[in-house]
Amino acid sequence: MKPNFSLRLRVFNLNCWGIPYLSKHRADRMKRLGDFLNLQSFDLALLEEVWSEQDFQYLRQKLVPTYPASHYFRSGVIGSGLCVFSKHPIQELNQHVYSLNGYPYMIHHGDWFCGKAVGLLVLHLCGLVLNTYVTHLHAEYNRQKDIYLAHRVAQAWELAQFIHHTSKKADVVLLCGDLNMHPEDLGCCLLKEWTGLRDAYLDTRDFKGSKDGNTMIPQNCYVNQKELEPFSFGIRIDYMLYKAVSGFYISCKTLETTTGHDPHRGNPLSDHEALMATLYVRHSPAPENPRPINGPAETPQLISVLREAWTELGMGMAQARRWSTFTGYVISLGLLLGLVCILVAGGGAKEVAILLWIPSVGLVLGGGTVYLFHTQEAKSLYRAQAELQHVLGKAREAQDLGIEPLPAPLLGQQEGDGAEDQ
Amino acid sequence: MKPNFSLRLRVFNLNCWGIPYLSKHRADRMKRLGDFLNLQSFDLALLEEVWSEQDFQYLRQKLVPTYPASHYFRSGVIGSGLCVFSKHPIQELNQHVYSLNGYPYMIHHGDWFCGKAVGLLVLHLCGLVLNTYVTHLHAEYNRQKDIYLAHRVAQAWELAQFIHHTSKKADVVLLCGDLNMHPEDLGCCLLKEWTGLRDAYLDTRDFKGSKDGNTMIPQNCYVNQKELEPFSFGIRIDYMLYKAVSGFYISCKTLETTTGHDPHRGNPLSDHEALMATLYVRHSPAPENPRPINGPAETPQLISVLREAWTELGMGMAQARRWSTFTGYVISLGLLLGLVCILVAGGGAKEVAILLWIPSVGLVLGGGTVYLFHTQEAKSLYRAQAELQHVLGKAREAQDLGIEPLPAPLLGQQEGDGAEDQ
Repeated sequence: MKPNFSLRLRVFNLNCWGIPYLSKHRADRMKRLGDFLNLQSFDLALLEEVWSEQDFQYLRQKLVPTYPASHYFRSGVIGSGLCVFSKHPIQELNQHVYSLNGYPYMIHHGDWFCGKAVGLLVLHLCGLVLNTYVTHLHAEYNRQKDIYLAHRVAQAWELAQFIHHTSKKADVVLLCGDLNMHPEDLGCCLLKEWTGLRDAYLDTRDFKGSKDGNTMIPQNCYVNQKELEPFSFGIRIDYMLYKAVSGFYISCKTLETTTGHDPHRGNPLSDHEALMATLYVRHSPAPENPRPINGPAETPQLISVLREAWTELGMGMAQARRWSTFTGYVISLGLLLGLVCILVAGGGAKEVAILLWIPSVGLVLGGGTVYLFHTQEAKSLYRAQAELQHVLGKAREAQDLGIEPLPAPLLGQQEGDGAEDQ
Repeated sequence: MKPNFSLRLRVFNLNCWGIPYLSKHRADRMKRLGDFLNLQSFDLALLEEVWSEQDFQYLRQKLVPTYPASHYFRSGVIGSGLCVFSKHPIQELNQHVYSLNGYPYMIHHGDWFCGKAVGLLVLHLCGLVLNTYVTHLHAEYNRQKDIYLAHRVAQAWELAQFIHHTSKKADVVLLCGDLNMHPEDLGCCLLKEWTGLRDAYLDTRDFKGSKDGNTMIPQNCYVNQKELEPFSFGIRIDYMLYKAVSGFYISCKTLETTTGHDPHRGNPLSDHEALMATLYVRHSPAPENPRPINGPAETPQLISVLREAWTELGMGMAQARRWSTFTGYVISLGLLLGLVCILVAGGGAKEVAILLWIPSVGLVLGGGTVYLFHTQEAKSLYRAQAELQHVLGKAREAQDLGIEPLPAPLLGQQEGDGAEDQ
């Protein structure tokens, strides 16, 4: 490779809002998206919320001359909604489905049924290994009382861990997607601090588009204006993040967003704005991120965000356990009713017995299902928390930063696990 | 590092059969296991089926002077049952929970509730990066009519992919665990061919223990003799597999199994036999596995096993879709009954209406749950199949081996996906 080597990458990202029967003008938007992608001929187009596999197949057929490689990431009941189109051959593929993704009984939110995931594609470009990740995290429905916060933080941690462990031999790492988090949110900071990924919007000197780089803006006619009311200029929840790992340097030459219309000033392509970046990868005299062999450098910022995430997961775990206990009572009540039902039936009052039998079975089965779900939820949160605790322990050892011991009430939940994972 | 560098690793693996209330003499066996591990002072002890976290905590406290580092891998409703004890500090941790793991309604088998997984621990020993994996795959309950075969093959593929993508910078890779597969089984071949892992039992020149290295043998008093009837010398389903990746060479100096008793000729430690190996890692003049940048070399054996796995997953997918269709009919029947119920109630026959209401709600809710489950099952099998298809496509491109096109009836299920993932 020549010392003046330079690789240009043009990347497109869009949350497509492709919910069958519910999203407005879906077919027309998919058609215009296909036309635009063909016209622009990006190196990579990464899409989220392509919920219908028929939409993916339509795009695939339309885009195959320009983007010969493509992949649809399947998971959950509905799918992850993630897909990619690439001008360059995809060398390797993998995906990770998040352990936690909302609650099945919150049917109106629907995230649980989607099987939210992160997809990985490995490309080899001019002898350089590029790991590209595409993801979509759990939606935020109520910022003031966000019942999914612990799940989203756990997802951000799993995403960060997946990237950390699968990109060790990559030269360049690129993550695109809808993180459903504002830039200053805990999960976003956790992800960036643990992986060392940089934000294209904050990095570029040439930005064109919506104010503050926002990707859901009031000017977009498909956006629910009421939900955006507290944010007069919109919110930034879709990202392009990147880093160069070994002997390379990556920078964002230009970044552009759509501004509530499609690029030809027509109806928007989605309720989100698209991100379009031109990235440059160059040789770097020294590694860009000279990280220690153990993983990311344990900076005070990292320690602080790890501790905050640890606490948040602990609160989520306490909540999950409260639900398990409550459903335990519900199951007991159901069993008690069943007993009464048998006694009443023995006494001859069959109509009453039948009437009691319905709630009894309902309480036992319904309570049982919810109990199983929340027990699994607590286990998954505990798993993420134990991994964070391990990292905090290593940081304490490595730098002897004099970190205060972790909060006692939360440590109490660890069932004597404090000394584990040295 | 000196040219005559040599690292000795003593490793222990055991499926502990630690089911609370069901496994015989559990407390006594855990005590004796702890004593034995302390006495032997292995570098690593990898355990499966430690279902109770209390058992892990008991072992942790007992072993902490000899094995200061430990971790319990949490997942699912019950847990993965996996844990590790290490004499050396654990640098990094991660885990992957398999997307498919049996059926929730097969309560008597129970695998679904466990959240079977693979755990990863990264160790740094004398400047060498050692990735150690521990896993436990879905049990085989009926070898003649194995309804879990597609799930186990999908698990083996996810395991192979997890190892492949997370070990790219490791010098040495070690996998221990209960694979619930005989050495010649499809999933076992798929795992070994895709990762390049070698079998300690086949590799060592100094083996002591049960005939053919079997890890479930009729001599063990806890083994269900009826299940082992077709195999007079037992079966080999627990493994130690390894490889050196870059400039190192790994070999198994000695391998030993228990033989139906504990090492002091007392009652066995479990219904499985323990594996105890002494491994040596040395410098290798040339890389042991000079693999192409794309991943494993596409040997005819690999191609053949990938195609076989592709077919097996396709059959699993067809079965899952048949279940989805069947439960669709069940839901329709439930809705029809609900309609009849409303009509009957309108006619005044309330007792009949109540009697009809119960099966109606039951059919809709039960059928709905099973429908969702099998839809998700088909998606997960399809995901694994698409990844296999991608590898087969790359192999076809790379070597132009003249592989016959994939079977038409199965390609038909791909919904026009044949050309995807180039």
